[in-house]
Amino acid sequence: MAQKEKDICETLFMAIFIHQILEHTDVSSRIPGPTVGIVGGGQLGRMLAEAAAPLGVDVIVLDPTPDCPAAPVSRKQIVGEFDEKRAFDQLSSFADIVTFEIELADTALLTHVEQTHDVTVHPAPATLALIEDKLEQKRSLEAAGIAVPSFREVDTVAELQQALAEFGSVMLKARTGGYDGRGNVPVTDPDDASTALESIAGPAMAEEFIEFERELSVIAIQGADSVRTLPVGENIHQAEILRETVVPARTDETIQERAKEIAREVLAELDGRGVFGIELFETTSGEILVNEIAPRPHNSGHWSIEGAVTSQFEQHIRAIVGWPLGETSLLCPTVMCNLLATVEETCSARLQDVETLLEQPYCAPHWYGKDEARPLRKMGHVTLTASGRDISRNELLAQARDVREAVSFEDPTSAW
Amino acid sequence: MAQKEKDICETLFMAIFIHQILEHTDVSSRIPGPTVGIVGGGQLGRMLAEAAAPLGVDVIVLDPTPDCPAAPVSRKQIVGEFDEKRAFDQLSSFADIVTFEIELADTALLTHVEQTHDVTVHPAPATLALIEDKLEQKRSLEAAGIAVPSFREVDTVAELQQALAEFGSVMLKARTGGYDGRGNVPVTDPDDASTALESIAGPAMAEEFIEFERELSVIAIQGADSVRTLPVGENIHQAEILRETVVPARTDETIQERAKEIAREVLAELDGRGVFGIELFETTSGEILVNEIAPRPHNSGHWSIEGAVTSQFEQHIRAIVGWPLGETSLLCPTVMCNLLATVEETCSARLQDVETLLEQPYCAPHWYGKDEARPLRKMGHVTLTASGRDISRNELLAQARDVREAVSFEDPTSAW
Repeated sequence: MAQKEKDICETLFMAIFIHQILEHTDVSSRIPGPTVGIVGGGQLGRMLAEAAAPLGVDVIVLDPTPDCPAAPVSRKQIVGEFDEKRAFDQLSSFADIVTFEIELADTALLTHVEQTHDVTVHPAPATLALIEDKLEQKRSLEAAGIAVPSFREVDTVAELQQALAEFGSVMLKARTGGYDGRGNVPVTDPDDASTALESIAGPAMAEEFIEFERELSVIAIQGADSVRTLPVGENIHQAEILRETVVPARTDETIQERAKEIAREVLAELDGRGVFGIELFETTSGEILVNEIAPRPHNSGHWSIEGAVTSQFEQHIRAIVGWPLGETSLLCPTVMCNLLATVEETCSARLQDVETLLEQPYCAPHWYGKDEARPLRKMGHVTLTASGRDISRNELLAQARDVREAVSFEDPTSAW
Repeated sequence: MAQKEKDICETLFMAIFIHQILEHTDVSSRIPGPTVGIVGGGQLGRMLAEAAAPLGVDVIVLDPTPDCPAAPVSRKQIVGEFDEKRAFDQLSSFADIVTFEIELADTALLTHVEQTHDVTVHPAPATLALIEDKLEQKRSLEAAGIAVPSFREVDTVAELQQALAEFGSVMLKARTGGYDGRGNVPVTDPDDASTALESIAGPAMAEEFIEFERELSVIAIQGADSVRTLPVGENIHQAEILRETVVPARTDETIQERAKEIAREVLAELDGRGVFGIELFETTSGEILVNEIAPRPHNSGHWSIEGAVTSQFEQHIRAIVGWPLGETSLLCPTVMCNLLATVEETCSARLQDVETLLEQPYCAPHWYGKDEARPLRKMGHVTLTASGRDISRNELLAQARDVREAVSFEDPTSAW
């Protein structure tokens, strides 16, 4: 190469090198508090970042989607897959503590992070590994003497039909990867067994279909040296997707106390600090059965941002950093209502018709900043609080549903 | 140039071009809500960004300090001076609406932004121009029939001595640029006039020194078609720096109502939407005089994050975007306490001894993420709420002061 070319190359490489240095310095050294690395940058990551900021905690997220929902409110996004070693290494190089907001986080890589970087992962990777396989999750709960719906592993049509014979109706579940109803198929007719198993397309389990009075959930927090639980919520699902949470749950005090006790029993079986969302069935006979555990902040705890002294997101940050947990008292009766994209097909998203919602005086909006509306995708939520007014939970719920009707996310100017 | 050099150059320029395109795309087109550009990225910018996120509003800040407090929670920081045209142009190219969180924002450039870019500036640049000159601010209030302390322009020692003769004691104020006590000098002795004027080192005004019963403040919001006020706070200053705000102010209901009326009268004189912090004196004779106006969210309104249904920061975002304003009700008695750096000299900052504070159950911490502790610099604040407990404002205030004692920001490992 001629000297001039060499000079140009040298300048170019120097520029790239300085840029990398600056980028690194920018992220790791100029901060007064700890830095949390989060695997996953969806709405949970976004709300974790929103809660981390007042605590002086910096957040860096890892997510495969460029400009993921958490990105604009985080210090940095690492664009990478949930099983991409390079991305986990990069995240760990910036973080003091690593956590995850999605079960798809690769547990082997989380273990690698703990072993090769000077960072702790909370909750423990082994806890995620246990929970992400719904069959193993249930087996472990059962072994600990915690009441769960009857279940069995099903790999063949014959096994599923045997489960049907035993349980009557079943909920057929993918052992891994299901969420928001995907991977859950109710089956009653033995003739549907083959189709149902095909739709799961992978390892499956069958659970006794529970005739429940209501679905409850407890947000439980494992801190460095204490466990706390938030007030019990009542979840309303439709087509397997959470639509609303009512707090306190419209059930007896004794049921609520028992639900919290069970949540504590569940946490005693799990390693690592952080927030866990524990979904329960209150059966028609007054039993409480554990349905599912999420090793992370959970949709059924979003109400806590306005309704509790300390939100589940702040609790998670406090727990994983090792700080004292926050006060858990309910501030007032609260209803959370998910805003799902009501579109027929995927299209670009823009906030529309938000005025009606914003005029509602005790209604807190949360948009997740997603630029793509997909059918039934969670685009945001609203929280309605009683805030000292004489208003029933049923009325709050009705108001929340009215508000939901008023808003849309579809960009009418755009064909995707 | 040889062909190879040309190729290298072309590749380099193409890379820079693509990078710019991507950077721009990243910021301006992938968002569901509007983008707000904020001149200033200190703690007010940070808390504005924290409030904007749940509303789906993206924030971009302009600040001369790289990695300013607002940067980690904003989509982007433009590093530039508050009077740098290039930086204002860049901010405007990304933003749908421009606002400011610091009076140092150049009003001529804000006007330029409105005239040459398709963005509105809120509040109006003319309003900032009026307010940033404390003499003009007072003249305008007086002309509108709003009660203010007696004042006069003072350019010479003789004029200051004349003011002293007329008012007894005075507060000598720099007409522009003062904040947190800088630029305010109390003067009683005519012999101190010369030294006092020298310390101001610029255009000055003298105000009658008010013997007040207490200092009040009203956060008032000018929306697109309505004005709202938050409950009245009581401010406790020390050495001209706000230390605590108690809400509701410990004074009569009628005084509070009158304070809110005055705030509305003040807003009627000012153009443009947004939050205004209006500081008032309640005199020993029960008069209410306007002390100062801030055309932005104000330290005396920080309590509203936990204490009001809608915080001053969310109100500001709603107002400037043109959305309906939020509910203003007080949730419960609340005390805000500033955390000032108690260092003797500038040093690097790190969160220290935060456990005591975090263990306090109804205490919400807010760290501003500043990496440098300077004497009496505002490093954060805490808010203590009654939250349904039977606890007096005096008790909350005492608790807040105890909490303040427990925390420090000085990094003991670092010499600056």
